Amino acid sequence: MTNTVTVMGLGLMGTALAEAFLKDGRTTTVWNRTAAKADHLAAKGAARAATAGDAITASPLVVLCLSVNDNVREVLTAAGDTLAGRTIVNLTNGTPRQARELAELVTARGGEYVDGGIMAVPPMISQPEALILYSGSRRAFDAHKEQLGSLGAARYVGADAGLAALYDLGLLTAMYGMFQGYYQAVALLRTEGVKAAEFTPMMQSWVTAMMAGLPEQAAQIDSGDYLTDISSLANNAAGYPNLIEAAREQGVSTELLLPLRDLLDRSVAEGHGADGVARLVELLGAPAA
Amino acid sequence: MTNTVTVMGLGLMGTALAEAFLKDGRTTTVWNRTAAKADHLAAKGAARAATAGDAITASPLVVLCLSVNDNVREVLTAAGDTLAGRTIVNLTNGTPRQARELAELVTARGGEYVDGGIMAVPPMISQPEALILYSGSRRAFDAHKEQLGSLGAARYVGADAGLAALYDLGLLTAMYGMFQGYYQAVALLRTEGVKAAEFTPMMQSWVTAMMAGLPEQAAQIDSGDYLTDISSLANNAAGYPNLIEAAREQGVSTELLLPLRDLLDRSVAEGHGADGVARLVELLGAPAA
Repeated sequence: MTNTVTVMGLGLMGTALAEAFLKDGRTTTVWNRTAAKADHLAAKGAARAATAGDAITASPLVVLCLSVNDNVREVLTAAGDTLAGRTIVNLTNGTPRQARELAELVTARGGEYVDGGIMAVPPMISQPEALILYSGSRRAFDAHKEQLGSLGAARYVGADAGLAALYDLGLLTAMYGMFQGYYQAVALLRTEGVKAAEFTPMMQSWVTAMMAGLPEQAAQIDSGDYLTDISSLANNAAGYPNLIEAAREQGVSTELLLPLRDLLDRSVAEGHGADGVARLVELLGAPAA
Repeated sequence: MTNTVTVMGLGLMGTALAEAFLKDGRTTTVWNRTAAKADHLAAKGAARAATAGDAITASPLVVLCLSVNDNVREVLTAAGDTLAGRTIVNLTNGTPRQARELAELVTARGGEYVDGGIMAVPPMISQPEALILYSGSRRAFDAHKEQLGSLGAARYVGADAGLAALYDLGLLTAMYGMFQGYYQAVALLRTEGVKAAEFTPMMQSWVTAMMAGLPEQAAQIDSGDYLTDISSLANNAAGYPNLIEAAREQGVSTELLLPLRDLLDRSVAEGHGADGVARLVELLGAPAA
């Protein structure tokens, strides 16, 4: 396998990606719309491409990390038939639909497309803790797995190019839920002078313990059998208003708390009060086909 | 210290509490508004109190676990001066304000009041994993710490009777945030046939890794210095709409996702885009006095 790679897009993340390739001694070509962003990498041994077209033809493996997928589409459309025989690994943030459209665009021009979701911040790149999810062409992923290993732990999640973005967005959604709960809790506790530093270890232990029960909820979700003796929707719907009342009493905004109350109430109104709280998944969207 | 205790309120949780005292060989008197709920405990050796008044006078330590604090107030008001010299430990779910009002009621009648928040489900009671937070009279807590130890790990969080409920509600708030993010993520992933059981271990690792960064955010919150190089509000506000767009594309409800988007947008509009995302705590409520 060739040891030559191109990185397009030199924001914080793209720069970290190019540095990781350089660190592992790979011949790295870089390009950015604003060329000055490549100065630092050129000093470290990267080759500069004068144009986006030059960047693509410089390497059989082209990694993109632009600000949005509209820019990716623009660059790849302009590249036309020069995509033939190359592997495009797109690590730009986007949605599953965008990934699938770009996969079509690339394969129609004879290239192979792999989409990726980076579950890490730039300083983590090149470390094994940096999880990067990939989907799309299995053959292209396998062929470049060793090179992509420079960036972090590579995990292939499926042939549908949209899957990496789907997992990525799912993990981010879960993260934002946790953050939101944490900020709301801290806002409540500090009204009585409790320091965030004091509350945080307790929160971490508690949420870790609660996360340990998720595989049981996952089994309910996958089987569709939500009956429970432990934590029913009716119990949760009855207790949840305390959280809202306490926030109001303490002068904390309830805006982040209200939608879950409405969902809990709806689940009970629809007759699911005896089911476990995992049934909320059903209320959020149609089950898988 | 006397080894005699009363448990009032024999729902799932109250029954578990009474069983835990009995298991440790304590003389346990029980009472429930619907007397039949005591049958099972009487068979295990509990003494039945015919009336709420009898239940209170039976023991120097009275543990209440009723459905709501309105019922606690009613029972304690009726008890009048028989509260003198007794310790009331109220484990009923409620708000900090309710706890403080009940503390006043009890101390005005010569009793001591301890409020508690049970961070466990009934089957966990009596195990060390069952965390129970207490606040209120330190003297009464210390005097009965050994007996309360029958129920789980006892942790005293402060003299203000409202603190246990505040911590309890804060921890529940954090838990619901995590659950909400998980359900939303699973609803998204199953639209493409990804099983919850497949996604869950990945979600657990990822959220655990993200929780490891919370002490750093806590330090920002406690210091009020939110400047960051890593994950600014502007970055988060720019990326978050992808989650909403992906949910829409996949036919999943966005109702749980929208309030955080609005909060992120507001933080940027108010000029905090360069700050870390932990600053959202400031937008949710007034800082501690």
